[in-house]
Amino acid sequence: MNRRTFLRNVSVASSVLPLASSVIPSPPAARKLGVALVGLGRYAEYMAYQVKESQYCEFRALVTGTPSKAESWGKEYNIPEKNRYNYTNFDQIKDNPDVDIVYIILPNAMHKEFAIRAAKAKKHVIVEKPMALNPAECEEMMKACKDNNVQLAVGYRLHFEPYNLEMKRLGQEKVFGSVRIVEASLGYFSGQAGEWRLNKKLAGGGPLMNLGVYCIQAGRYITGEDPVAVTAQFGPVLRKELFSEVEESITWQMEFPSGAICTSTTTCAAGIDRLYASAEQGHFELSPAISYGPFRGRSTKGEMDFPQINQQAAQMNAIGKLLLDNQPMLDHISGIEGWKDMKVIEAVYKAARSGNKVGIKW
Amino acid sequence: MNRRTFLRNVSVASSVLPLASSVIPSPPAARKLGVALVGLGRYAEYMAYQVKESQYCEFRALVTGTPSKAESWGKEYNIPEKNRYNYTNFDQIKDNPDVDIVYIILPNAMHKEFAIRAAKAKKHVIVEKPMALNPAECEEMMKACKDNNVQLAVGYRLHFEPYNLEMKRLGQEKVFGSVRIVEASLGYFSGQAGEWRLNKKLAGGGPLMNLGVYCIQAGRYITGEDPVAVTAQFGPVLRKELFSEVEESITWQMEFPSGAICTSTTTCAAGIDRLYASAEQGHFELSPAISYGPFRGRSTKGEMDFPQINQQAAQMNAIGKLLLDNQPMLDHISGIEGWKDMKVIEAVYKAARSGNKVGIKW
Repeated sequence: MNRRTFLRNVSVASSVLPLASSVIPSPPAARKLGVALVGLGRYAEYMAYQVKESQYCEFRALVTGTPSKAESWGKEYNIPEKNRYNYTNFDQIKDNPDVDIVYIILPNAMHKEFAIRAAKAKKHVIVEKPMALNPAECEEMMKACKDNNVQLAVGYRLHFEPYNLEMKRLGQEKVFGSVRIVEASLGYFSGQAGEWRLNKKLAGGGPLMNLGVYCIQAGRYITGEDPVAVTAQFGPVLRKELFSEVEESITWQMEFPSGAICTSTTTCAAGIDRLYASAEQGHFELSPAISYGPFRGRSTKGEMDFPQINQQAAQMNAIGKLLLDNQPMLDHISGIEGWKDMKVIEAVYKAARSGNKVGIKW
Repeated sequence: MNRRTFLRNVSVASSVLPLASSVIPSPPAARKLGVALVGLGRYAEYMAYQVKESQYCEFRALVTGTPSKAESWGKEYNIPEKNRYNYTNFDQIKDNPDVDIVYIILPNAMHKEFAIRAAKAKKHVIVEKPMALNPAECEEMMKACKDNNVQLAVGYRLHFEPYNLEMKRLGQEKVFGSVRIVEASLGYFSGQAGEWRLNKKLAGGGPLMNLGVYCIQAGRYITGEDPVAVTAQFGPVLRKELFSEVEESITWQMEFPSGAICTSTTTCAAGIDRLYASAEQGHFELSPAISYGPFRGRSTKGEMDFPQINQQAAQMNAIGKLLLDNQPMLDHISGIEGWKDMKVIEAVYKAARSGNKVGIKW
């Protein structure tokens, strides 16, 4: 990581901050917020590494159920022993002034519990997507944060990614007229015996929970609308030994109030990563679209050309800056957003199970 | 049209002929087959113009219900009066040795009648897609052609188009492993008051009949399989005054025996033209994909680079050559293909109307 890359990343990150008055890189913040990562899986590893480039946040504490991880991560990231927690003593974090934010990267079924415990410890909460197992859990999490006067965000990294922001702008500002069709799909060939993502109780569902939520997000941020009805279809199960509890593939369709339609596929059976929108007078698309990039995009007007940024640092900068400035959470990554996506996921599963169209009331 | 373009087109067309022994341009055929175009609408205009470049076929007769068109087309294309027919005296074409092939480009509801009348006149039959209104009509058409010992083809122009042939090859030869997902969508912002395509009785349905059939084809030629079940959803009607009889948009999903899924959208509400396939070890895609081009394509291995050809001339060359050589019709444009697509269309409408998954028995 050289200085030029660092400055470019910071500059880009700044340019998407709602409160930034300039794209000129700011000096390092006088004070950085301390982040405790809860759950040290693959994405936590990525987050810990990427967040080093954040201007406003730093990784200062960890929470894990695996003592050997506490040890190895502690060494690698210079986390003192007093800042290493397990799931039992986690609540003591309330007395730790090093920690401002608890970032929950646990299996989905543990999001609610740890968000509420973090809120009670008076720490701000960031929770990875999907926010929880269902909308009711999201409501409990929002209430706990409100009651304890802490902020709550969902880790929607793409809301800080320039290609996705451009898709959102082209759609919501109706640059090519009203959006009529969105196609949003994300899949990876994935699934290993023993993984929590294949366990219905821990994951709540299959790729729809983990990957499909991005497609739902994309359909929503491109149209700027919330779907009012969905239809859905489970795909075939190609690896029955792995996908005995959760779906391997699912396709679904969302209908928006304007009449726009979003069709999506998410799957563990193949790689797919694309986002396409067709509007009255043109179209715009990304592929790769949703993964960690590098992204490529084009529209009726030609190729898009944006920098490839450090999404995690950009996200943490945006959240860190507003917390330092004592501003309210950005609407587009708030608990309400996570709750809305869970409402859609719930409806999609209901539609897939029943074979019927399912309305969503807002 | 210069000589180089001509030679390039012929060369490409030859390279896709099953019987061509070489890609070196052949000399003009000693004898060309005469084509009678039935129905002088927009696509007939395009066909008449493009077929001029065909090596094996020429436009020699016309059939129209509009006397002024007989006159103007006759003059433009040097069609003598004796080769100009109307819908009443059409059957006399049996006595016209100038005509070998009757190419039917009428509203869908008229395909069956004219295919059968052409067969009885002992002329080979090419019928535009969709082949007819339903599978039963296709069966009658096939029987009439068999009984009269003439050949029957459906105007599936993309079976001669290099980018689509590459998609077919990559899928069927499993270059990236088994295909798991296909996304195939085609739409145009279209629909004008009075058009036959908006009339249920004449068209049999909306964009699914006209455009969706290409997506069904694509799903089938990329996987090399026939779908065993479909689900489908009618889209919203944005222009109620135009789309009171047929759908304005429809999305549907096809399940193939291998477990591959194809999801599609077709619509008159927006432009969309794309084809994407994801397989076990890679993906491949076209966009534009299905229209008249120019096509663009790429795969996990990089950009595709094929010539943009005259699809109509290539199609007519392939059909003309095999008729001259007294060879059987190519499987992939035969009546059986048209019938299969109609079976799928019928199932898609049934699924959309009922909201249920509909199985297809082969």
